[in-house]
Formats: sequence, C-alpha cells, structure tokens
Amino acid sequence: MFIHTLFILSLLFASSHALDFCVGDLSLPPGPAGYPCKKSTSVTENDFVYSGLAAAGNTTNIIKAAVTPAFDAQFPGVNGLGLSVARLDMAVGGVIPLHTHPGGSEILVVTEGTVAAGFVSSFDNKVYYFKTLKVGDVMVFPQGLLHFQINAGKTKATAFVFFSTQNPGLQITTFALFKNDLPTEIVETVTFLDEAQIKKLKGVLGGTN
Amino acid sequence: MFIHTLFILSLLFASSHALDFCVGDLSLPPGPAGYPCKKSTSVTENDFVYSGLAAAGNTTNIIKAAVTPAFDAQFPGVNGLGLSVARLDMAVGGVIPLHTHPGGSEILVVTEGTVAAGFVSSFDNKVYYFKTLKVGDVMVFPQGLLHFQINAGKTKATAFVFFSTQNPGLQITTFALFKNDLPTEIVETVTFLDEAQIKKLKGVLGGTN
Amino acid sequence: MFIHTLFILSLLFASSHALDFCVGDLSLPPGPAGYPCKKSTSVTENDFVYSGLAAAGNTTNIIKAAVTPAFDAQFPGVNGLGLSVARLDMAVGGVIPLHTHPGGSEILVVTEGTVAAGFVSSFDNKVYYFKTLKVGDVMVFPQGLLHFQINAGKTKATAFVFFSTQNPGLQITTFALFKNDLPTEIVETVTFLDEAQIKKLKGVLGGTN
Amino acid sequence: MFIHTLFILSLLFASSHALDFCVGDLSLPPGPAGYPCKKSTSVTENDFVYSGLAAAGNTTNIIKAAVTPAFDAQFPGVNGLGLSVARLDMAVGGVIPLHTHPGGSEILVVTEGTVAAGFVSSFDNKVYYFKTLKVGDVMVFPQGLLHFQINAGKTKATAFVFFSTQNPGLQITTFALFKNDLPTEIVETVTFLDEAQIKKLKGVLGGTN
Amino acid sequence: MFIHTLFILSLLFASSHALDFCVGDLSLPPGPAGYPCKKSTSVTENDFVYSGLAAAGNTTNIIKAAVTPAFDAQFPGVNGLGLSVARLDMAVGGVIPLHTHPGGSEILVVTEGTVAAGFVSSFDNKVYYFKTLKVGDVMVFPQGLLHFQINAGKTKATAFVFFSTQNPGLQITTFALFKNDLPTEIVETVTFLDEAQIKKLKGVLGGTN
Amino acid sequence: MFIHTLFILSLLFASSHALDFCVGDLSLPPGPAGYPCKKSTSVTENDFVYSGLAAAGNTTNIIKAAVTPAFDAQFPGVNGLGLSVARLDMAVGGVIPLHTHPGGSEILVVTEGTVAAGFVSSFDNKVYYFKTLKVGDVMVFPQGLLHFQINAGKTKATAFVFFSTQNPGLQITTFALFKNDLPTEIVETVTFLDEAQIKKLKGVLGGTN
Repeated sequence: MFIHTLFILSLLFASSHALDFCVGDLSLPPGPAGYPCKKSTSVTENDFVYSGLAAAGNTTNIIKAAVTPAFDAQFPGVNGLGLSVARLDMAVGGVIPLHTHPGGSEILVVTEGTVAAGFVSSFDNKVYYFKTLKVGDVMVFPQGLLHFQINAGKTKATAFVFFSTQNPGLQITTFALFKNDLPTEIVETVTFLDEAQIKKLKGVLGGTN
Repeated sequence: MFIHTLFILSLLFASSHALDFCVGDLSLPPGPAGYPCKKSTSVTENDFVYSGLAAAGNTTNIIKAAVTPAFDAQFPGVNGLGLSVARLDMAVGGVIPLHTHPGGSEILVVTEGTVAAGFVSSFDNKVYYFKTLKVGDVMVFPQGLLHFQINAGKTKATAFVFFSTQNPGLQITTFALFKNDLPTEIVETVTFLDEAQIKKLKGVLGGTN
Repeated sequence: MFIHTLFILSLLFASSHALDFCVGDLSLPPGPAGYPCKKSTSVTENDFVYSGLAAAGNTTNIIKAAVTPAFDAQFPGVNGLGLSVARLDMAVGGVIPLHTHPGGSEILVVTEGTVAAGFVSSFDNKVYYFKTLKVGDVMVFPQGLLHFQINAGKTKATAFVFFSTQNPGLQITTFALFKNDLPTEIVETVTFLDEAQIKKLKGVLGGTN
Repeated sequence: MFIHTLFILSLLFASSHALDFCVGDLSLPPGPAGYPCKKSTSVTENDFVYSGLAAAGNTTNIIKAAVTPAFDAQFPGVNGLGLSVARLDMAVGGVIPLHTHPGGSEILVVTEGTVAAGFVSSFDNKVYYFKTLKVGDVMVFPQGLLHFQINAGKTKATAFVFFSTQNPGLQITTFALFKNDLPTEIVETVTFLDEAQIKKLKGVLGGTN
Repeated sequence: MFIHTLFILSLLFASSHALDFCVGDLSLPPGPAGYPCKKSTSVTENDFVYSGLAAAGNTTNIIKAAVTPAFDAQFPGVNGLGLSVARLDMAVGGVIPLHTHPGGSEILVVTEGTVAAGFVSSFDNKVYYFKTLKVGDVMVFPQGLLHFQINAGKTKATAFVFFSTQNPGLQITTFALFKNDLPTEIVETVTFLDEAQIKKLKGVLGGTN
Repeated sequence: MFIHTLFILSLLFASSHALDFCVGDLSLPPGPAGYPCKKSTSVTENDFVYSGLAAAGNTTNIIKAAVTPAFDAQFPGVNGLGLSVARLDMAVGGVIPLHTHPGGSEILVVTEGTVAAGFVSSFDNKVYYFKTLKVGDVMVFPQGLLHFQINAGKTKATAFVFFSTQNPGLQITTFALFKNDLPTEIVETVTFLDEAQIKKLKGVLGGTN
C-alpha cells in the first residue's frame, strides 16, 4: 500500500520539468534568467559536480596569474541558482588586475599563500579597503565595485572566489580601455590619461586607433 | 450606507503603514532594501515631486559637465520603488568621464544638443558600443559596465538618465584610481599604467602615496 | 606576451552567451523574465539605441495626446534589464487618461510645457497626490496605482516617462470598462455607474452588450 | 557527547536573529521589504496562526460583501515571506467592485456558493477573461490588472484569496474616482464620464468638489 | 475619433507578447523563471481557471491523505506569477508526513474538519511551532522548513495550501530517506537511525541497498 | 580645478548612506532584507574581512565534524549582498548529517582530503545525486534540498561552502526530529519511524515526550 501511495504522490509531480533544479541546456539560447532546463531524465550527478577547478591554471603569462571560471557556461548545474565559483592562481609576483563583475558580489577565500586584495568605493573620505589575507581568510567585494588581488607572498597563491550570480561577468579595466579600437582621443577624453600612455598600452594589448 | 461600506473597507487597511508606497525617512538608518518608510499621514504630494533637476548643474569645472542626482537620498519618494533619475549637463567640450553604476542599468535620453555615448563590453570580438545621439534618442547601458558621455556638438548638451535602482552608485574610474592614497606601486601593478602617469594624475586629483 | 594573456582570459569567457547583456530576440517566444537573448556576435550598437522617441507622436485624436513606448517589444536592448521608457506628447488640452501600469513604478520628467499630474492612493484620509509640474520637474508614480497626466498649459507639453520594468503594461481605466463586450449589467454592478453612462461610452468606444 | 555536539552546533547559529523567519514587529516603522523582525525569543506558535478569517465578514452594507484581510499588518507571521491571504464574503447579490492590487498577483478559491469573476487585460482583440466558478474552482488574477467578483448564485458565497506579496494593497476603482476631493472637472477629463454621473457618485461616496 | 484613438493606442502595444501575463506553454522547455509564454491570441479564460481541486483527492492509501497540486505544470496560468495552490484531503487518521517545499513559503487555510499542523525551526530553545486549527484558521510555514499536517478530528479534513512560488517542490523526508537506493550504511551515517529501522522502511517503500 | 570638480561630484553623493554597500549594524533589529547599515564613516577594511574560518573547527564530538559559519551574524560585511560562506572540517570518519538550508543554494569546494557528498531530489526515477569529491572538485546543492557530506578518506577533510544568501539557515533533520519535545506519537505519525527508534534518539539528543 505504501508503494501505491508513493506511486500516487510521485505521479502528481512527475510532469513538472523544473521541480527541484534547472540544469542549463547550453544548446539552447539563454534568456535573462539563464538557460532553458535540461530534461530531468537526462540529468546525472555529473551535472552537479565540476572538476575543472582541481588543477591550477596556467600562470606562465604576463600577469603571472590565471582565472578559471565555473560559471553557467562551464558548469551548467549552477544555472538558475544564483551562484557560481572560480579559481584564482597567482605565481610569485602574480596579479589579478583591477576589474569589476557587473553582475554580482564576490567572496574570496585564500587557500594557499598570501593575497593582498582591495576594492575601491566612491565615498569621499575613505575610498578604498585594502588588506593582506592569509590562508583561510575571507574577504567580500560588494557588487560592481573595482577590485584587485595580488600575490603578496614569496610562494604561489591560490584562492577560490564565489559570486552571488551564475554569470558574474568580468570587466578588466585595462583591457576595457586599451584592447579595443576605441579612438585614442576618446580614451584620453574620458580618462584624462596621456595620449602617449594610451598608445603604449594599446600597442601592447592589440588595440587600434 | 455607502459611507458605512467605505468606512468598513477603509478601516480594514488603515493600519498598514506600507500600503501603497514607502517614502524614505532619511533620519533613520537605511537597510539593504532602502530607508524605513515615513509615516503615511505625514506624506504629501511634495514627497513624490522633485524640482532639483529643473536647473542646469554648474559646468564651470574641468570636465565642463555636471551630474545632478535624484536618488533616494535626494528624492525619498523613490525609496523602495527600484528606480531613480539624474540630469546631465555638458557645456561645449564637456564630458562625463568613464564610470560604472554598480547597482543598476541606465537609460539616457538626450533633451538638448548632441551626445556621443558608449559602453564597453567584455566580449572578445566586439568590445564596445559607441554612437552619437541627437535630441530624443535613447540609449541603454547594461548594468555595471563601463560607459561615458561626451558633448559631441557645438552647443551645450543636456540629458536625463534613469536607473533601475533607487541608488545606482557612481564609480568614476579615474577618481577611483588616482584620487586616493592607494600606493602608486599598487596602482601600477593592477593597471599596467606607467608610474609617471599615475603620479601625475594623483597630483592633479589630490591622491597621495 | 600580453596578447597571449589577453587571448587566454578572453577565451575563458567567450563561450558564455549572456555575459554582459541579453538583447531580446523577438522572433522567439518570451518567458516570464523576457525574451531569449540574441547571439552576442550579431549584436551591434544599434541594439542599444532607439530613435523612435525623437519625433512627437500624433496628437490629432480625441485625447489630443500620444504615448510612444520604447519597451522590450520596440527596444529589445532593454530586455532583461528591468527598465524602459516612453514619450508623452500632449497638445493644448491634451490628456493621458486615468491608467495603471501593472508591472512597475514610473518616473516622469517634463521636457516641454506644463503638466498637471496625479495619482490616487488607497489611504482613507488623503487619497490623492496632485501637482502641476514645470520643465525639469520630476514626479514618481508608485507601482500599480491609478494616475493621469494633463497638459495644464497653453502650449504643447512633452514628457519622458521611465519604468522599473522592461514591460510595464498599460491599462487605461475607461478603455478597460467600456471598450469590450463585458455586459453592461456587469459593468454597472462592479462600478456603480449608471446604465445610460455605460451604454453611452460603450457606444463611443466600440464596446458591445 | 551528542548533547555536546548539539550545543556546539546550536551555539554557532544562535546569534542570528533572522535565521528562519522574520515575524514583523509592528511597533517599528516598516521598510520597503517589510517590518523589522520581532526577537526570536518572543515568537510563539500564535505568531504563525491567524483566526481572524474564521468568521464571516459583515455583509450588511451596500455591496452586500466584505473583505477580511490577513496581510502583514493583521498577521505579522507573513512578514518577509512574500504571501498573504484574505477572506471574501458575499451575501446574495453581493459584489466585490472592480479593483486592483498594486503589489501582486492573486489566486481565488471558492469555498461556498457560486462566484462569477473576471479580469480585464489590455490586449486589443480579447480584453477580458470572465468565468463562473463553483466550489473548489480556482482562478488566478495576474498582477495589477482590474478584476471583480460577483455572487452569481442564490445563496451566500465565500472565497479565500491569496496574494504573492505580504501587502497587496487594494485600489477600488469607484472609490479612487469618487470618494475624494479631486475636482469633478479633472475626473471628467481623465475618465470621459459625464459631469452629472461624477457628481452623483461623489455625493453617494462623500467626495467633494 | 475615439475609435481612432483606441486604434492608435492599441496598436502601440499590440506587438508585445508578454504584456499582462505569461500563460505557460508546457510543450517548450522551461527555464529558471518558468515556461515560455503561450501566444496571447490563443489564451482563453480557461487558462486562468482550474477545476482540478474541486473534487477530493483519493485518500484510500496508507497515509489516508492526498495532495492535489495546481502548480505551473497543472495550471499554466500561474506561470511567472510567483504563486500556486494545492488541496489537502485527510480522511480520519490521515496525515501529510513531514516534508519541505524547497522553493517557497506556504499558507494553509482549513476549510473542513480539524487540522493539527506544525513546523520545526532551528533555534536552540524553542524548535517547533505546533497548533490545532479549526475551520477558517490560517497558518503560515516559512520557506524551506520541515512541517506536517495531521487530521486531528473525528471527521475528514480539507485544507487549501498556497505557495509563494509557481513551483514549490515537495520533499517528503521519509521518502527522501528510504525510497531510493542510497546505501543503508550512508543513511545510517547521516541520520543516526538504526540499521534495522532503515532496512524496514526501505522494504516498505521499495528502496534498495 | 580638478579638485574643485572632485569636490562637487563627491558632494553630490555624500549624503547617501547606502551608496556602495550596507555593512550590517548587528545592534539594531534586522528586517526581511537584512540588518540596517552601519554608518559608512565607521566602516573599515576589517568589516569586509573575516578570519574566523582560518582555523579548523573542533571535531572532537560525536559527528567528528564542525561547521564554522561566516553568515551575516558573524560577518556583517555580507549583509545585503546575498552571499555567505562557511567552513567544514571533518576528522576521519566525520560526517555533516543530512540537512537543508531553507534560504538558498550551496556550492562546496574541497580543499583537503576526500569528501563523499550527495543530495536527494524528489523525482520518481532518480532521487539522489551522490559523488566522491577530491581536492579542487566543486559540487552544487540546489536550494532547500536534503544533502550531506561525509569524510570518505583516511585523513581529515576540509571544504568551504558558499551560499546564495547572507543567511542560509541550517536544519539538521535528525535534530529537527529528535532534539525537541514534540510528542513521540506525532514524530511517529509524520515519519513512520518506530516508537523505540524515536525514543532512543530523543534520549541521546535531549528531546522529551
């Protein structure tokens, strides 16, 4: 009789595709709230687990650092749940340059090494919050504000960063300014930077005009 | 009898302070959702009207421009409603420097003159959207992305900007970088700008270190 | 090497369709949160700019007024961003009749002429907020409440109205009551209006029964 | 040892006032998200139960109907939870006049008698949805749209209505138009109703001007 | 001329599919915010009315109770509106076992008989709220907390339950623990229940391992 | 002149308390959206950093595990930001018993050892998702669903868990059932567990009745 009950109760809810979660179907176009849901019958435990953050990112580059994301496009299990994660690796001297996440707030946890991190507010008297963090320390970066992380130690540093959205976005200020073909004159006008400085960084980053 | 009905129906809802709106009481500390509500009995039509945007802002300054906000702190009638407005005035040659609003998206309407406006995305192939706008044109700037406005004409320009939040915040990139006492070395590290450039703008803007 | 870095960082985020915005693809069915996103590779600056509000609407009609919307269906760049805009034109004697926007709050900015505007609350002692606005004045109309705008001057009046949603809806009370084939008897019952009054306006507006 | 564990785990969360719910403290001013929370130590089961809907409302009035709310101001247990409930009683011939709830959507369940209910949309071709409901039938009224309920049977009718907000508000169109001292001329202008009709209903409802 | 006006105003908004509501099209995959919207031209009053709760559910089962849902999958009119409803029927001795709704809060209204209902909080000193409810009493169960309902009378009991979401989900604790093939050893480890107890209930409910 | 500009622009926004963040003032009662904001002038970098997760929790207890939270009550910097974090420590044989977080979804990152984790859905055919995770693996637990973590290795295990809310709550099923004075008869009725089993665990956990 229990099985009968079970059957009845199960049946009632069986037709609802989105009952408990909505693993993203990346083959369909997303909407403002995320991707359409994968059919529940084809969802497995692997949809909720991601191993892409287990290995350190490649830090053999000019910033001596790497960001490895597990956002909705990499980890469809977070689709619709309003949170995501990424891994930061910084070799000695490594830095995650000044950037914002347009879509949400961030919490960072240091898991290896020493990280100096800061963010800039827009208050008049005290415009930045900057601190050196050890293993196990956490720091929160409120939504949309400019922030950065620097390896402040003599060994490699690792951190995990979490976001209050499944797709935080990433806007690195220096790239936004110098990587594209926005005319130098306009960049000069809207930043007060010198023309020579702009042209130099455009050259390095591949921007034109 | 109608009056009786009226009395009864009115009575039922009379005890609810927050029935239709929540004009902010700026004398109390705000919370994440905004300010506590002013008592409805002391609310008047003046709480819903703001005349502070009627006059042009003072553009006699180095950016030849002014931003006049009607956010919750200036216009408590928008408290809790998730929208606000500001006025932009740009003299000939005026510019609203590169900035973000951490809290929301923006729509701009040009009401006088010609405005060149743009925002920067983080896509690889096409990283900015830039257009010259005439009177009556509207442009939308998605949440948290770097954007700017320039007077592109030979007369003064005026625009109204609207936000999808009662308190959008304003982070002007150049001020965030150079106005404070964040050490020059750190600014250099997180932006790749030259030391001389940083020191020059710190000097102009009053930043130290 | 910078270019290498750039390449790596760009690559990481390149697969996310919804990174920074979600311009609506009007060819697909919308959902509760808006339209599915247009592919980012086909998005241009024109998706974020709308010129349909630049010209005055045609006010040669019985209300001597026109509402020109830039909601998601007209201006897909606002899709998913939670805000939209419309233009109001009122000839001398023009009026935007009593109406609500079911979906959100509104801010009005007068850009030409004089506008008398008001909204009705449901409090017992003070049920309406009514004010005459000059150029540059702003007024906020809290979500879902009945409101109206009247050209209160001797010249044409123009205003821009902004909404805290990409699709505010528009329910004009008089149209809702008299334009359809809801039986006169029911309209009488639910409004206390006289049968003759209802039939007269049904006749004018094309309602039946 | 279990007790020790218990103690430790309990302790960790004991300092959080808002852990599981936020019963409204009606003695403090509310904010946009609701009332501040009552201290958890003084919360009892009675905060989560409301008996004010058990008895029928008094329908000895001109609409032969009564609305009895259990919104946040009457039932503080719903504070912050985004839902509330009310009871409708309609004697024979009773009617809940045309109205909107600015703050949310509504589901109605008929528990006694027969109820004819409808709402008006703003589409061009099909502007209303109207149906006669029997005991056990449910009907949903989307957010902010004009709707009404009528006792369509020969016995009293009862229904419970639920809202997707703790404070839906209630704007009865006829009261909004005629109960206040908004000048007759303005009401005429914004509704196209005849002056005589307006003055008649103002007289009945106690409106002036 | 009015008809002309009507035509113009109607036209402006006619192209927006999602104007006032978004009845779910169950033939398309849902997303995090619900199902895509059915075309407005094919929407009828029947989309907003559901009669599936009019008849009592079958209580001839081991719990002597039945839950009949009107969630988005059964009642597509609630799609996108953030609320839904279900009917509870309990024969004498009937019980709705301990369960949670992961997605939202619940309000229960007793419409027949006597119902003992309770929920469990996680505070240290007072961890449950339990009350016997009569016809017309309402009780609220805050989001995600364990709760139950028992027929506490000598006749059948009926209640309607409302949710602050269109798809609340239902996780019955006993089924979650014993119905599946999660190894007995793990169930033992994470619940502290005895092996014999677990195996007994797995046997009854059809769980294995 | 720049300084003048700076002064003007700064002034405009200086009166807004909640500009960029809302560090919680724990001395005031919270509301549904969180705690009132601490005055920005008294906010320091220490409000955004928390070191309470740096040390392992004490696992000398019967579950051989500890949960150390950094929720709003411990880490007021997350107030209003919709995210929080906690640390899990599990000695060999340690287990975080079956539980839910009523308020949000969770992402877990293993930073040391091996963790077997799972959650239970309510679908009929496949009701649980269970996986053994190594260092660097992440797993997501959708909102409100029952889940657990077990040290599956031969050394201690550590993980950080992140939540899509500043106050996720924690409801441990076994404590909810047996720690309180809910009568044994009721627990039996709503769980189908045997009386002896219930009394045994009530005895261990300090529950009565």
